[in-house]
Amino acid sequence: MAAIQFGEIEGIKEGDTFISRQEMTNKGLHRNTVQGIDGNGEHGSASIVLNGGYEDDKDYGNLIIYTGHGGNVNKKQIRDQSWDDPGNKGLLISEMHGLPVRVSRGPKHKSKFSPEKGYQYGGLYMVTSHKYKKGAHGFWVCLFRLEKISSIVSNSFDIRELSVDYKTGETSRVASTILRIVRDTRLSRKVKELYNYTCQICALRIEFNGVGYAEAAHIRPLGKPHNGKDLLNNLLCLCPNHHVMFDKGHFTINNDFSCEGISEGITVLDGHILDPDNLNYHKEHHK
Amino acid sequence: MAAIQFGEIEGIKEGDTFISRQEMTNKGLHRNTVQGIDGNGEHGSASIVLNGGYEDDKDYGNLIIYTGHGGNVNKKQIRDQSWDDPGNKGLLISEMHGLPVRVSRGPKHKSKFSPEKGYQYGGLYMVTSHKYKKGAHGFWVCLFRLEKISSIVSNSFDIRELSVDYKTGETSRVASTILRIVRDTRLSRKVKELYNYTCQICALRIEFNGVGYAEAAHIRPLGKPHNGKDLLNNLLCLCPNHHVMFDKGHFTINNDFSCEGISEGITVLDGHILDPDNLNYHKEHHK
Repeated sequence: MAAIQFGEIEGIKEGDTFISRQEMTNKGLHRNTVQGIDGNGEHGSASIVLNGGYEDDKDYGNLIIYTGHGGNVNKKQIRDQSWDDPGNKGLLISEMHGLPVRVSRGPKHKSKFSPEKGYQYGGLYMVTSHKYKKGAHGFWVCLFRLEKISSIVSNSFDIRELSVDYKTGETSRVASTILRIVRDTRLSRKVKELYNYTCQICALRIEFNGVGYAEAAHIRPLGKPHNGKDLLNNLLCLCPNHHVMFDKGHFTINNDFSCEGISEGITVLDGHILDPDNLNYHKEHHK
Repeated sequence: MAAIQFGEIEGIKEGDTFISRQEMTNKGLHRNTVQGIDGNGEHGSASIVLNGGYEDDKDYGNLIIYTGHGGNVNKKQIRDQSWDDPGNKGLLISEMHGLPVRVSRGPKHKSKFSPEKGYQYGGLYMVTSHKYKKGAHGFWVCLFRLEKISSIVSNSFDIRELSVDYKTGETSRVASTILRIVRDTRLSRKVKELYNYTCQICALRIEFNGVGYAEAAHIRPLGKPHNGKDLLNNLLCLCPNHHVMFDKGHFTINNDFSCEGISEGITVLDGHILDPDNLNYHKEHHK
């Protein structure tokens, strides 16, 4: 088998169609003709094919909730899935390492984005989160949230680093991709000011000339389907490390402010009420 | 004086012109009629006016090298500037806290982007870095790099978080702004693999289910004017905290791999050669 290749394949563009899985394999888009995930637990997963195999899959075009591999026979879930399955571990690697995943759709995949026959390449996606969830069938499955890169950044070229020649004034862009975007809301500043830009877990205050840097983390994510609110009872002031660790489920927070996954607890000031429902939501999400 | 206001001012859009500084003040765009920086060392700086006051200013439209406040009499630099000047400290705060800065240009500012008479509002910028530099006049000045937000993200609306109603499939965006973008290059992965996603400063390995997360830092930034290269001798594998700290100049690295600004040294594997010129460039930049 050829070495795994991430990103666009030369000669193939979004919207291109293929008669069969075999043709996709021959052209290097997806290196196997049966499995939905092309990837492994060492390098990551580079491509998925949606073709109606899993009842928990959901396809909204720019956003896909994708069920991992395993425990499925004749389209029925008969046992729990595992993060250690090579395809699933590969998608986790793609999430953590910011690797792009090619998405293709087949004729048996029920969505308005699927081709009637054959297979269609739908572009590059990023895995933005993962979840272990008990489905209606009673078994635990690994779910991945994939967002289309062109929908995260409308013109991905423009996210590259600006380069300028001070003499001629000519500007250009340096090739790069996005690993992570730290977003901020209006209320983010409030929680950071409350804690004077000091991490509520490790008390680190990153600073330059006395000016602090910290990040605000929403305990329950904003927007649908999470429906978390942009309120102080849903916000934490964290250093970048604990922000990544919290978002990726490396640790969760108990109602008594002890933590699971790390040895430290969380410092919460008088007057900063954390909504226990939000803490539980985060815990459930990262079970 | 009215409270400081960050971001767009209601009723004013990019390209709008003003007869005088007084009109800008009356409309809330820039709260004082003389100083180039509207801001303070507590809340940040919300607005600057470029009007030919400083010889070290450079204006490339989407990118501006802006000289801080102080030590300048009749357009001549007569003493060193200080980070503790309220306007300069304010711009540092805007950089560290991701606050947008309004940029306006006046008639005495020599650039093709300046109006012939009166003042023109040029849009929102982010302060992306700062530098203490000895100018041709022999004095040290505080320089700020400002990049136009719409040039960092071509459609800033699209950087907001995607929200989806799983039942109806309707998608929308949750209002947010960007605090920080972590970019990655092709070679970034190599240095992260070399160190198995472990920070070269603190040995932290953030992980979920055994999958590591780390960030690659370019010692000398890519592109002009820095001209750093995307090579292993210019790359470090860092945790998010030490990446922010390194980029903001919280610490620098000596040729013997000890560090200034933090107590730890840096671990460098055999075969990973760091170019001393790159280390010195970073040090000079953050002097």
